[in-house]
Amino acid sequence: MNTWEAFCEKWIPLLEMEMRMAVGEPAHPSERFFYGMLAYHLGWVDERFQPARYDAGKRIRPMLCLLACAACDGDPAQALPAAAAIELLHNFSLIHDDIQDRSETRRGRPTVWVLWGIPQAINAGDALFTIARQALWRLKARHVTLERILEVAQCFDAACLQLTQGQYLDLLFETAERVTVEEYLRMIRGKTAALLRAAVGIGARLAGHPPEDLEAFGEMLGMAFQIQDDLLGIWGDPAVTGKPVADDLRARKKTMPIVLAMERIPDFAERYRNPQIPVEVLIEDITRSGARAEAEAMVATFTQKALAALECADLRHPYWKVLRDLVQVMLSRVR
Amino acid sequence: MNTWEAFCEKWIPLLEMEMRMAVGEPAHPSERFFYGMLAYHLGWVDERFQPARYDAGKRIRPMLCLLACAACDGDPAQALPAAAAIELLHNFSLIHDDIQDRSETRRGRPTVWVLWGIPQAINAGDALFTIARQALWRLKARHVTLERILEVAQCFDAACLQLTQGQYLDLLFETAERVTVEEYLRMIRGKTAALLRAAVGIGARLAGHPPEDLEAFGEMLGMAFQIQDDLLGIWGDPAVTGKPVADDLRARKKTMPIVLAMERIPDFAERYRNPQIPVEVLIEDITRSGARAEAEAMVATFTQKALAALECADLRHPYWKVLRDLVQVMLSRVR
Repeated sequence: MNTWEAFCEKWIPLLEMEMRMAVGEPAHPSERFFYGMLAYHLGWVDERFQPARYDAGKRIRPMLCLLACAACDGDPAQALPAAAAIELLHNFSLIHDDIQDRSETRRGRPTVWVLWGIPQAINAGDALFTIARQALWRLKARHVTLERILEVAQCFDAACLQLTQGQYLDLLFETAERVTVEEYLRMIRGKTAALLRAAVGIGARLAGHPPEDLEAFGEMLGMAFQIQDDLLGIWGDPAVTGKPVADDLRARKKTMPIVLAMERIPDFAERYRNPQIPVEVLIEDITRSGARAEAEAMVATFTQKALAALECADLRHPYWKVLRDLVQVMLSRVR
Repeated sequence: MNTWEAFCEKWIPLLEMEMRMAVGEPAHPSERFFYGMLAYHLGWVDERFQPARYDAGKRIRPMLCLLACAACDGDPAQALPAAAAIELLHNFSLIHDDIQDRSETRRGRPTVWVLWGIPQAINAGDALFTIARQALWRLKARHVTLERILEVAQCFDAACLQLTQGQYLDLLFETAERVTVEEYLRMIRGKTAALLRAAVGIGARLAGHPPEDLEAFGEMLGMAFQIQDDLLGIWGDPAVTGKPVADDLRARKKTMPIVLAMERIPDFAERYRNPQIPVEVLIEDITRSGARAEAEAMVATFTQKALAALECADLRHPYWKVLRDLVQVMLSRVR
């Protein structure tokens, strides 16, 4: 059955195995705690490093890499090391994100820095970043040519750099008085879209398919995904998101609906800074200004662009429809 | 003239150029601050991002890489991208180190986190880590074979992982009641020796020379270098080190002389934790116990091992003598 769910059901266990191989095991008792922190973050052990199974996220990025490879007539098994690298990279960025945002929980568990302190958490992130890249070298054992491995490694590194550039803007925006739509789009292109773009592009490359259209698909999908996430941060159903109503608003995050409201309402930037103004009033402001509708229209536009790029790629394998349907899966997801 | 100084005088400017090429420039005005933080840390600009020239360290690691390449009859110019990668990697680790240790100055200037906050400093480190790896890809333009580039990249990544393992132990030791000599040696093998080992090994590989003996040379040199640094942290001349007398002791760091004193004096661990006991008394204890002499003997032993490994490598190029002399240069250095 060619569905995203069926694809994930088949490939996630293989991805997990590949990730575990990449992370490896302590070679010496002194490294037990070092590896324990990584395994904890990846959802494999509890905080006393006892084996356990926790929610580890939906593995969307690596599955997208494998699916793109399959849809381009490649063998997803060959792409497993790259998919593992992408998921490990994403997880490294979460460890550092949590320190930067002072987030105390992730997926219902205390974050690494809360349990073991900021210095060890910075270092655990650096270790996972290294391991992510090392995972790529396993492509050799999958008989990928050296030329292609190098090409993939360069794509991967380029995405890493874009990730840090996006993160830099995101951190900058926290203290900025205002943020323009253009600046915000630049930020999410780096922070969210670059990795989805790389995931799909690397999948295509490993299948020997020209990557450009699929990269555009991944990038547009990433943009739609992030703005949808921003909408959920304000109007998401707490019963579904597991977070309080309008959580992002309470934290005064400058997400897309806010950036749009700042452009539409002259004194909104000032009002948003004012802790006296109740969240309900702000929400009312944003909706009435048309900012909510505009953000929704942006999601629709990026989605259309993603689908158009996918059409351009002109894939013949039946899996292309799974890629197409994935757009709906991702955009109808809960946070 | 075949001396370390002459070699550095010739190659440091070329290394600097290679590093600047690797770091690159902002592609958009919004990235000016992002690149500015990196350039500041590398000593290229002041804190308002105006071009300047600051002490940027002695570039020992990259010069060692180039010299090893030359001593193995290779062309150091071919190794420049790898040397740049090694120096950028070292600098990435310093940005994160400074956060972890809460160090407020480095080479006489405020550290990145002091100027721009911990979140941006973590991210600047991540960016420099990425750029370090990207620097390696420039080996292609130097006509290094793909096979060798991949081999070098794997060595580089292995050193990165060892670096994080060493750093993890170092952070752990801060709060540990006691640290054994074996544990301490394991820590510095990762934190200091792994990168020197990789620098020399990569230089040899790029010259097409079997790397094993030179890697052993680099590792032993790194061990000697670190313990010598530990000795200077207690007995270094403040006029030369630029730091107060016994700076490491005041910070209650557990460096090699301390670890040895803990093994030799039953209540030293306890006394060391006691802030009432004057530094002068602790120094007297360490010397009298023989811990200082033992640490000095360790430096001598690792130095001999380094020189023996260098002999084994059986290099024919006159530069091998510069490598040999470098051991003295490094061990007689000021902090």
